[in-house]
Amino acid sequence: MHKPVLGILGGVGPLATAYFMELLIKKTPARTDQDHMPMIVFNDPQIPDRTAYILDHSKPNPRPEMAKVARWLQEAGADYIAIACNTAHYFYDDINEAVEVPVVNIMEETARSIAARFGEGATVGLLATEGTVESGVFQGYFERMGLETMVPDAEGQKRVSHLIYDCVKANQPYDEEEFLEEAYRLRDAGCDAVVVGCTELSVIYQELSRHPKWLFDSLDILADRCVKIYLSARAAGGQIEM
Amino acid sequence: MHKPVLGILGGVGPLATAYFMELLIKKTPARTDQDHMPMIVFNDPQIPDRTAYILDHSKPNPRPEMAKVARWLQEAGADYIAIACNTAHYFYDDINEAVEVPVVNIMEETARSIAARFGEGATVGLLATEGTVESGVFQGYFERMGLETMVPDAEGQKRVSHLIYDCVKANQPYDEEEFLEEAYRLRDAGCDAVVVGCTELSVIYQELSRHPKWLFDSLDILADRCVKIYLSARAAGGQIEM
Repeated sequence: MHKPVLGILGGVGPLATAYFMELLIKKTPARTDQDHMPMIVFNDPQIPDRTAYILDHSKPNPRPEMAKVARWLQEAGADYIAIACNTAHYFYDDINEAVEVPVVNIMEETARSIAARFGEGATVGLLATEGTVESGVFQGYFERMGLETMVPDAEGQKRVSHLIYDCVKANQPYDEEEFLEEAYRLRDAGCDAVVVGCTELSVIYQELSRHPKWLFDSLDILADRCVKIYLSARAAGGQIEM
Repeated sequence: MHKPVLGILGGVGPLATAYFMELLIKKTPARTDQDHMPMIVFNDPQIPDRTAYILDHSKPNPRPEMAKVARWLQEAGADYIAIACNTAHYFYDDINEAVEVPVVNIMEETARSIAARFGEGATVGLLATEGTVESGVFQGYFERMGLETMVPDAEGQKRVSHLIYDCVKANQPYDEEEFLEEAYRLRDAGCDAVVVGCTELSVIYQELSRHPKWLFDSLDILADRCVKIYLSARAAGGQIEM
């Protein structure tokens, strides 16, 4: 029986990739090593910064390298692909078109999951990179599910970007409470749910001593979906159903 | 400039692989995603249990699958390979012979590191799988560095194996204090150093609230060595020096 192989387009960022693997492993019902999901991971630090390009198209374009890694994963045997980076989903269509195997979309899965819990008309707060916020791609997925999006104000976004770039990506210490404060600001401004929409912030989220019920981690939702795809496909003899 | 790519033979076990990646990332001096080590990881759950085979050669032999993954990593572009599993080093020579690129040896690196700190004649306690302990391979590396090895008694080994197989590999909760007690037993019996010689135990080690100075994690030593190889090779234009 073929066990479907998950390909992870990683290194964007590297720590989020390791944390994503950990989530997948802990979420898989397994009693032995042999019960776990087969995974191929390419942590490619050559991929240019996504936010830098989205905000200024004269900067290096990460699209070709990401499409290359996706093709590499497919050729290496991946039956489905996940990208451990929200901002990279600005380029989702290009990555998806570069391969024949399905690419699980973290933004679509997150929007669907929030809509299923809160229903149409709910307001979602978005904690993400400036690239994700400015591009409006995540907001588009929320809108298609009938959800309103609220983002931090300019000062709040600066503090969020600082946590992502100057702390997690730079291997520097950070204060989890600062992160939680930004989430509470959006909640207090009227959000029904707040989404951790950057995988570097997911790394901070996992270290919180408390997880408010209205705070949802997109990487956690992506991991749930990948485990579900794996278990269904394993039961169906390897056939992936998306 | 070519950045040397580390290939990780993973999935043995899966959680230890994710933790090994995390260690590598946190140990790499990096200010951005782009400064990090390129890595290819194959988490292959098809590899049969190493200890089961070492204790009973009628069980499935993990050697061919591990050699296959090593070759796969080499063909995929790995410039050097690490195996996130001590017990798998019983098969080190076969894996090493299957590829042209260097395979970093966790046991050799650990023995060298302990010998450098404690000098000849020191006694090292070994916390590992029954497969590793029974095979005597780790003890052989210690001996070649002039170190004596002490292992837990039969009851202690049962408790250690329980933590590895029934807890970490099975995604079940465990008590870090139980693990620490086993380490203290070896220390109290006269060991100068105690080595965490199973990567599942490394997962527990990382979660300890205190790390006695005489307790050394083999996976941590392997990660230090891989980062050192990466930084030297990057500085030398990509050439790996072992």
